[in-house]
Amino acid sequence: MKIYDVEGFPNPARVRIALAEKGAVDQVEFVPVDVMGGEHRSDAFKARNPDAAVPCLELADGTHISQCTAITEYIDGLFDGPSLTGETPRERAQISMMNLRAEGGLLNAVGAYFHHATPGLGPDLETYQNAEWGQKQKEVAEGTMSYLNDVLADNAFIAGNKFTMADITAFAGLAFADFAKVEIPATLKNLVAWREKVAARPSIAG
Amino acid sequence: MKIYDVEGFPNPARVRIALAEKGAVDQVEFVPVDVMGGEHRSDAFKARNPDAAVPCLELADGTHISQCTAITEYIDGLFDGPSLTGETPRERAQISMMNLRAEGGLLNAVGAYFHHATPGLGPDLETYQNAEWGQKQKEVAEGTMSYLNDVLADNAFIAGNKFTMADITAFAGLAFADFAKVEIPATLKNLVAWREKVAARPSIAG
Repeated sequence: MKIYDVEGFPNPARVRIALAEKGAVDQVEFVPVDVMGGEHRSDAFKARNPDAAVPCLELADGTHISQCTAITEYIDGLFDGPSLTGETPRERAQISMMNLRAEGGLLNAVGAYFHHATPGLGPDLETYQNAEWGQKQKEVAEGTMSYLNDVLADNAFIAGNKFTMADITAFAGLAFADFAKVEIPATLKNLVAWREKVAARPSIAG
Repeated sequence: MKIYDVEGFPNPARVRIALAEKGAVDQVEFVPVDVMGGEHRSDAFKARNPDAAVPCLELADGTHISQCTAITEYIDGLFDGPSLTGETPRERAQISMMNLRAEGGLLNAVGAYFHHATPGLGPDLETYQNAEWGQKQKEVAEGTMSYLNDVLADNAFIAGNKFTMADITAFAGLAFADFAKVEIPATLKNLVAWREKVAARPSIAG
């Protein structure tokens, strides 16, 4: 299988970490996409992924899967190793819920701040900006950091006592926050400690 | 189990349709939430669901699951009947991807238009509005309708040849579009025909 992505970008990082957790990085051919040159908005790329975004998974038969959560579910189901998306209906639901909170409330909120309230990827790519919306989403991201800090007071990981897809999403969200200069308050001690623990995992530290 | 919701609202409808598809409506006690009175933003409600939104599922042991996709995954895994979320990794991923497109691109986009660019739920509840953002999201919703119409040229349902969670989300998105007066162009014949077919299902027509 192939993954069209950009190394180092926040959403591609989610899929790369998931693959590393499953020990399956060498099962994938990574194809770089020239996002800074607008390749993701070309007709050729949108035929693969109408969302015009990276990453996008391509299976051997030409099927395309985009949206990080969907790609992660596929990888998790296909390869052996500890489950990242849950094994019982309750586990799956709790992980899905926390993943959605980390995605909507943190990663995507930071993304909205970056793309709308900062120069983002530059004037050629940021063809619509709404700075007020971006600032509001920064507040959402800060609120989610505080919420996750509370969650981590009682849980070793974001969705309970196991490392899951929700941790990957939250971790990528904090990495994006660093890049976009959205400060992670040092007072959020649980979040900071969890981040150090996750950063030390072989799937991330290498 | 209990579901805290508002009958007739778009996201609650998703969970009610999923329950009906699984023949499990009578397994649930519905508890009405006074959203128009702001109950969903009370501390008591946010202790159940920090997203301050309906619906929210409460299990017998007090566990809460929110986010419609997560609730639907739980219902689908718990009850018998045709799968709404897929049975193989590939099916699961394709349904998840199309569900996310229908949610982000249609239902949530219509929601953003309704809450930001119209009076929405009224001045007491719409405490932050960004009309320009709302109008932009209306364009997103219209683009997604057109995209789904193209998808339905080759597929009986949104995620392939079976009725799934993605159909429920898109159907609720169109219902919200009607309510918010976002027109569904009659030229989108595949989408209109699919909608009639879905509306006739016993889970919806009753």
